[in-house]
Amino acid sequence: MNGAESLLRTFVANGVDACFANPGTSEMHFVAALDRVEGMRPVLCLFEGVVTGAADGYGRMAGKPACTLLHLGPGLGNGFANLHNARRAGAPIVNVVGDHARFHLQYDAPLTSDVVGLARTCSAWVHVCTNAKSVAADGARAVLAARGTPGQIATLVLPADTAWDEADGAAEALAVPGPPAVAGATIDAVARLLKGGGKKAAILIRGAGLLAEGLEQAGRVAEATGAALLCDTFVPRLQRGAGRVEVSRIPYFAEQIVDFLEGYEELVLVGAQPPVSFFAYPGKPSWCVPEGCRITYLAQPHEDQAGALRALAEAVGAAAQPTKRAGLRRPELPAGALSQVSVGMAIAALLPEGAVLIDEAATSGLAPYGFTSTAAPHDYLGLTGGSIGWGLPVSVGAAVACPDRKVVCLHGDGGAMYTVQSLWTQAREKLDVINVIFANRSYAILNIELMRVGAGNGGPLALSMLDIGDPTLDFCRLAEGMGVAASRATTAEAFGDQFGDAVRGRGPRLIEVVL
Amino acid sequence: MNGAESLLRTFVANGVDACFANPGTSEMHFVAALDRVEGMRPVLCLFEGVVTGAADGYGRMAGKPACTLLHLGPGLGNGFANLHNARRAGAPIVNVVGDHARFHLQYDAPLTSDVVGLARTCSAWVHVCTNAKSVAADGARAVLAARGTPGQIATLVLPADTAWDEADGAAEALAVPGPPAVAGATIDAVARLLKGGGKKAAILIRGAGLLAEGLEQAGRVAEATGAALLCDTFVPRLQRGAGRVEVSRIPYFAEQIVDFLEGYEELVLVGAQPPVSFFAYPGKPSWCVPEGCRITYLAQPHEDQAGALRALAEAVGAAAQPTKRAGLRRPELPAGALSQVSVGMAIAALLPEGAVLIDEAATSGLAPYGFTSTAAPHDYLGLTGGSIGWGLPVSVGAAVACPDRKVVCLHGDGGAMYTVQSLWTQAREKLDVINVIFANRSYAILNIELMRVGAGNGGPLALSMLDIGDPTLDFCRLAEGMGVAASRATTAEAFGDQFGDAVRGRGPRLIEVVL
Repeated sequence: MNGAESLLRTFVANGVDACFANPGTSEMHFVAALDRVEGMRPVLCLFEGVVTGAADGYGRMAGKPACTLLHLGPGLGNGFANLHNARRAGAPIVNVVGDHARFHLQYDAPLTSDVVGLARTCSAWVHVCTNAKSVAADGARAVLAARGTPGQIATLVLPADTAWDEADGAAEALAVPGPPAVAGATIDAVARLLKGGGKKAAILIRGAGLLAEGLEQAGRVAEATGAALLCDTFVPRLQRGAGRVEVSRIPYFAEQIVDFLEGYEELVLVGAQPPVSFFAYPGKPSWCVPEGCRITYLAQPHEDQAGALRALAEAVGAAAQPTKRAGLRRPELPAGALSQVSVGMAIAALLPEGAVLIDEAATSGLAPYGFTSTAAPHDYLGLTGGSIGWGLPVSVGAAVACPDRKVVCLHGDGGAMYTVQSLWTQAREKLDVINVIFANRSYAILNIELMRVGAGNGGPLALSMLDIGDPTLDFCRLAEGMGVAASRATTAEAFGDQFGDAVRGRGPRLIEVVL
Repeated sequence: MNGAESLLRTFVANGVDACFANPGTSEMHFVAALDRVEGMRPVLCLFEGVVTGAADGYGRMAGKPACTLLHLGPGLGNGFANLHNARRAGAPIVNVVGDHARFHLQYDAPLTSDVVGLARTCSAWVHVCTNAKSVAADGARAVLAARGTPGQIATLVLPADTAWDEADGAAEALAVPGPPAVAGATIDAVARLLKGGGKKAAILIRGAGLLAEGLEQAGRVAEATGAALLCDTFVPRLQRGAGRVEVSRIPYFAEQIVDFLEGYEELVLVGAQPPVSFFAYPGKPSWCVPEGCRITYLAQPHEDQAGALRALAEAVGAAAQPTKRAGLRRPELPAGALSQVSVGMAIAALLPEGAVLIDEAATSGLAPYGFTSTAAPHDYLGLTGGSIGWGLPVSVGAAVACPDRKVVCLHGDGGAMYTVQSLWTQAREKLDVINVIFANRSYAILNIELMRVGAGNGGPLALSMLDIGDPTLDFCRLAEGMGVAASRATTAEAFGDQFGDAVRGRGPRLIEVVL
């Protein structure tokens, strides 16, 4: 058994059973070992940004890491942006980056680069294998690092000789410790704070606190104390829809955040950080918490957020169950003009229970987000790191993690072009994804931001840099070129028909929404 | 005038007049300034890998840097792979990476990342602007750094507030010193070595030595001394074809290199490094220079290679002009089966004088390279860094740099999918590029490498990782989806017709060669 095979066996033993891959020569022993090891599903992607985005989507939905297989520094570089998004989501990922054999590095061959320096910029844990016999143990430690709370990016650099040299066998599974519980004194202090002062309070939740169990506990606390439940604009994962306890999403723009938070005197953080503006603007504050509002951490990102909410519910003497939950409101299927409102209504009407809703719709996403708050219960994944070109790859990973759930990906056209290669993997793997592309032929958010940053109205050259409409991108041809069935909607009725058809069907579909 | 405008004016004053851009909010002041500054051509790309590849192609052909405009760390990360290729080519590039305003960094907003750490892994020169008033001087220094010999990647991180705060004006042009001349003693020593011993000698040339003037001088030396003229497998830029002095290309695989170099006793390096294998293989040497062969540097990469060859020609008493040059041999247009041989013949027959031939054809490129050695004179650009997804972006930049020359891009299908978004910019800018996609539906090189690295024949899972044929990628639909006219060739006649038509026409075209 060589080092590569020992690594694969170790991964499987440690619960890692999906590998998103774009391999090259230095990864051939890992690739060859796939046929000798049971239990690893390799998924080929045509670009490494798809690989890492897919691993992000998989990690968020599976609650455990997939591994990636990347080709030296440039492969990791191509994956950087979606590793950034994953890092900001606390998604667990184990990167395997092939590198030149150690004896080859001295020659500075063309593909040589500073792999470790690059890995450090996007990983919480980095290790370079030094010996085929220790690769297995290295792999087990990488999985353990990725499976922390929150999940982390663990990058294992695998020089080719450590993959092909003889190894001793796989490493056994390492126990994954759960997140530490929050101290009772902290729980009690927050309980007193929420029960005591009659102050206007909000609880800002992230991480496990936004999954079903955490939300149940948060709902108990909210009803017992009157505190509002909030979440960030961009959440890693939120379980929402009919029957779920609702949280209010903090808006995107700084001045909106300030208005939204106005009057709050207590802000309790559960796995979250205080709200700040996404970008800086001249003469505007980045810090959006009202002056005088006290900030208290109930649970840090590395702590047991759902457990802390449960303990808090007990400490405030909450009822056993929350009573307020989102109702099921399926809008009528709209007619007439196509807009994010009519698209949002149609999606909310037709979204199947258990769907995974992936949102990189940017300026087109507000209405769909609003209407789906009372759709059938579903999981919602947000663009936590702000780097566009995330949604399509994440759909790949979510669909691999959840083969029995419908994945619906809402995507702006500008962002979709970053990693459009994702569609091919959706087709190859017959993934059950509906891709809804909002084709406004513009980096529309930038038309807003151009004004907001005080750069003026923009002359013709400036505006041309925000305009992706000439030539028109034909997403149907792009999808068909990669084997994904596609259709174009120019009316609300057409969109409803096409989306409904896609919901009833199976396998990847793309609908271009012409706005 | 704000910092962004002062930077733009400084760039133009320093001869930088093309900007390949994919901006975001933090770059809006730079974008807005485009309308206030004469002389900068902004070129929008839909993905940052296109941006940096285009800057590489521009830099190689223009002999001076373009600037890029990239959005924070993830934008730079997306550009990493083609910056790696550019770095290996010695191409000059000035990156402008927008970052958060300095006062915003403390909040660790979603797009915050280690921009400087990332920039260091792909740049020779990195600077973070600290003040709007010094941005102009920073920009001038960045251009100077990029314009060294060989060209370098210079990355200027521009925090948003240094772009929007008031500046004092542009900086003046900095004089660019030429490369230092090689010492006379070195010239004389190499002259004695080549004239003296009767040993079998080769001169391995890179950089300016592969452009017309350098080749002329190298030809004089070769004829006077009997030394062979060689170039690397992957050259930044080689002027070749009818009328040019020919150099022999070192082959790709290690054992081929060893065979090719067998018997050489003297190896003179002109801007090149000793040949090594591209990848390492178990039990095979990476170092490919024959045992006992003496290595002598005539000119280092930072020195005046063409000047050194001229001085050497004088020192060896060469004739004023070389007599051996490539003849013009236009093959007959082939008929019958489509293969890299028939495609290569057709391209060599039809290639217009002054074309720029960009080669990422990988396993399909050997025959086209061979036949075009006696085609009309042209420039040839190679994949110096080995990171695929380079050719299509480089075609964008080469076409912007050379609007009156036909650009012909030979590309493997696997690599083309990495940065396929390039086609949209070709259409938007009406660039005169013929894209020839060799559709073998495979990472074909990896089928060879799987065996060569000793990983065996490959089982079904392993082989599936090298197979991109299911579903079939339809490059005509992909091209048309981005506004590029496309056709598919399945016979040699059809390819000849389509390529000939594209040569006579103008504007971007794509031909899918079904192998």
